Amino acid sequence: MTIDLNSDMGEGVGADAELLEIVSSANIACGAHAGDAAVMRATVRAAQKAGVAAGAHPGFPDLEGFGRRDMQMSAVQIADTVRAQITALAAIASSEGVSLAHVKPHGALYNMAAKDRVMADAIASAIAAVDRALVMVGLPGSALEHAAREAGLPFAAEGFADRAYEADGSLVSRSKPGALITDPAAAAAGAIRMAREGRVRTICIHSDTPHAAAIAAAVRRALDAQGVRVAGLRG
Amino acid sequence: MTIDLNSDMGEGVGADAELLEIVSSANIACGAHAGDAAVMRATVRAAQKAGVAAGAHPGFPDLEGFGRRDMQMSAVQIADTVRAQITALAAIASSEGVSLAHVKPHGALYNMAAKDRVMADAIASAIAAVDRALVMVGLPGSALEHAAREAGLPFAAEGFADRAYEADGSLVSRSKPGALITDPAAAAAGAIRMAREGRVRTICIHSDTPHAAAIAAAVRRALDAQGVRVAGLRG
Amino acid sequence: MTIDLNSDMGEGVGADAELLEIVSSANIACGAHAGDAAVMRATVRAAQKAGVAAGAHPGFPDLEGFGRRDMQMSAVQIADTVRAQITALAAIASSEGVSLAHVKPHGALYNMAAKDRVMADAIASAIAAVDRALVMVGLPGSALEHAAREAGLPFAAEGFADRAYEADGSLVSRSKPGALITDPAAAAAGAIRMAREGRVRTICIHSDTPHAAAIAAAVRRALDAQGVRVAGLRG
Amino acid sequence: MTIDLNSDMGEGVGADAELLEIVSSANIACGAHAGDAAVMRATVRAAQKAGVAAGAHPGFPDLEGFGRRDMQMSAVQIADTVRAQITALAAIASSEGVSLAHVKPHGALYNMAAKDRVMADAIASAIAAVDRALVMVGLPGSALEHAAREAGLPFAAEGFADRAYEADGSLVSRSKPGALITDPAAAAAGAIRMAREGRVRTICIHSDTPHAAAIAAAVRRALDAQGVRVAGLRG
Repeated sequence: MTIDLNSDMGEGVGADAELLEIVSSANIACGAHAGDAAVMRATVRAAQKAGVAAGAHPGFPDLEGFGRRDMQMSAVQIADTVRAQITALAAIASSEGVSLAHVKPHGALYNMAAKDRVMADAIASAIAAVDRALVMVGLPGSALEHAAREAGLPFAAEGFADRAYEADGSLVSRSKPGALITDPAAAAAGAIRMAREGRVRTICIHSDTPHAAAIAAAVRRALDAQGVRVAGLRG
Repeated sequence: MTIDLNSDMGEGVGADAELLEIVSSANIACGAHAGDAAVMRATVRAAQKAGVAAGAHPGFPDLEGFGRRDMQMSAVQIADTVRAQITALAAIASSEGVSLAHVKPHGALYNMAAKDRVMADAIASAIAAVDRALVMVGLPGSALEHAAREAGLPFAAEGFADRAYEADGSLVSRSKPGALITDPAAAAAGAIRMAREGRVRTICIHSDTPHAAAIAAAVRRALDAQGVRVAGLRG
Repeated sequence: MTIDLNSDMGEGVGADAELLEIVSSANIACGAHAGDAAVMRATVRAAQKAGVAAGAHPGFPDLEGFGRRDMQMSAVQIADTVRAQITALAAIASSEGVSLAHVKPHGALYNMAAKDRVMADAIASAIAAVDRALVMVGLPGSALEHAAREAGLPFAAEGFADRAYEADGSLVSRSKPGALITDPAAAAAGAIRMAREGRVRTICIHSDTPHAAAIAAAVRRALDAQGVRVAGLRG
Repeated sequence: MTIDLNSDMGEGVGADAELLEIVSSANIACGAHAGDAAVMRATVRAAQKAGVAAGAHPGFPDLEGFGRRDMQMSAVQIADTVRAQITALAAIASSEGVSLAHVKPHGALYNMAAKDRVMADAIASAIAAVDRALVMVGLPGSALEHAAREAGLPFAAEGFADRAYEADGSLVSRSKPGALITDPAAAAAGAIRMAREGRVRTICIHSDTPHAAAIAAAVRRALDAQGVRVAGLRG
């Protein structure tokens, strides 16, 4: 059994160094919602040193809102900005001898594109224009998955260790009690279950929720203890 | 014995909820280097609910660089932007029934003003223009302290639990080995020492260094165990 | 007969100096969609020197999109950011001995609030919280006008010299031919008509359309020639 | 005799449409100091339609300061951001069937790199990494020129129609009276002289100075009248 652990990084704040000891894939901000050329390069280097796969984490061009605000952009505008963001990171990574492994949209872009096929296709076309070997990361069954499949891109379905799931596999709405898992042991048990069921290839480790560090460490320890191999999406 | 623990918050990312259980003062980003009106309000509310004092954390107007890039601004420009930032947060806090307790400059603004009296005076004048009861937070013996004293503002000298100190009380340069304390027990011991010596009134708890959460928790536990009261700057 | 001519300024680019010789009211960007403390102060000074009334031009916090992108913000968030923007400019103006005369929302904020009463009320409440004597500028009959009236704020209906009007007084849609008036003589004739009919108190002079400078000059010359007095909203 | 006229565009404001009728090269902002993917594409299209050559106008990543603030960035950081900016515009241009012709650094980046060979080399290396046929635009005799020559890049020396020159060919300092030429006839005469002397290959037409539109029109009329051909740098 193998699973990938991914976490957002290079956003200018956050415990990147700590997380790089735990995860296998780093989603690196590309300057649109956070980060800049200097942070991108530093994060690529840190990931490389830690043996963690580097991927692009493109978001809406929205520094003020950290990419969490819904934006109305045309498909062409989305494709343009996503392509520019991936290309910027890829150029920096390349000069460090690193090939990008994956692309995971950020924040509102991720959530909107999960339901909006036009946006999802725009993102897929931008990825394909840079490198058809890049793995797109998104929700299983989402518009992003359909767009990736149709564009011939590899796709990795993503699960969340700190979110509760309904019986049908959907996420429990954040407005319901118990939606957010804050107990590290429960999160670790969920991660083990996801790794066993095999419906997702990567598990997201948040860095900005309460007890994030404790959850991340517990999830990794549990996977190691159960003999689940933690490896990047191309590993 | 009483000491304040302060931490930067409202920067859009980071474990604010976790830290609010530990610190007594929240330095809230005012939208220039991070944050926006929505995050400011949410952070003011969360601090209020946690019984943590709210303060302003003005920085250079520099979202791209997260306020960590040195900027060349005139004294008038600095005074204008610092005043606008404090006022924006104060208006939001006021509508929540919260009075700001302190002002701590952020990042490059903090570091530059520590050595540049003209910048420090500009910051002090901006604070005084809003509310002369606001406590300015800065390095002991810095230009910020001198500026606050001359402007008649209360001043709180700040120490760092995760940084090593030279015999003369200055910080060990980050370029030297051992400059950064990553062992929670050592950081806790340092905090106890600072509380006992009484040279600083507030200790900064970083949220973005490796092992930050463990250090923060260890510092607080140690202070509690030693009977040191943790309270805000006006507490 | 008296009419006001207003133009957006302090956006970091544009022919502010030229326009200050023509208009009677300057709508000064407040740092959210454009501008910063330095530009605000310089623009306030330039307006004062030219005898032009200074007003605030708050917009969505959106530097990337220049405030022209529709944003989904709650009423509280809009009120917070508008209030912070006006307050920031008012503090700078005050230190130059200038009182702000009016507030005109910018770009997408102006257009959305014209139709959305909740947003319009949020803007009106923010203005009222700063200074109830500030004149709100907006489209005649818009939600902004209704919100201003209910909040007890003075309101100035605005016309456009470079836009064609339908028989019912509404603007010809930009998608129709002839919607944009590019002939200076035609724009000047429209301005004269608006001044005579008295349905609007202020006419917007764009700086970013083709032939803007020629149109602005032609409008002013025509008003002067017809004996129409050009004066600010409190003049 | 042939000369190029260049002007900054795609900065979200300004009379681009008007200037496209006058100039032969458009310096298009790449999203760092102004502009975004949507504006870039619209400007590329407008330039193409007007028969004006499109070039990149990379600046410091500094939306707040419009790229006019001096920034301290390492050579690697500058190369990274300049390369990312050019690449982003080039990708958009390519999808419109347009090849970029030139690169002109913006604002503080242009001025600092004129004197700083390390910065100039960083910019040259970024251009070379994208396309060695791109013409770099800069001050004659500047560090930018030396860097371009050494990197094997074509270089176009630039003159200013609205600035007075000393006898030695340097610009009269802006702090001296008469530094700025505001009389269209004088600016036009200067442009004719520059075209005849042949020391510069391109003349900058500002859009944000008083009387910019009148100067631009006068310069173009004078060149046409004197039989000077106005053509892009690859024309």
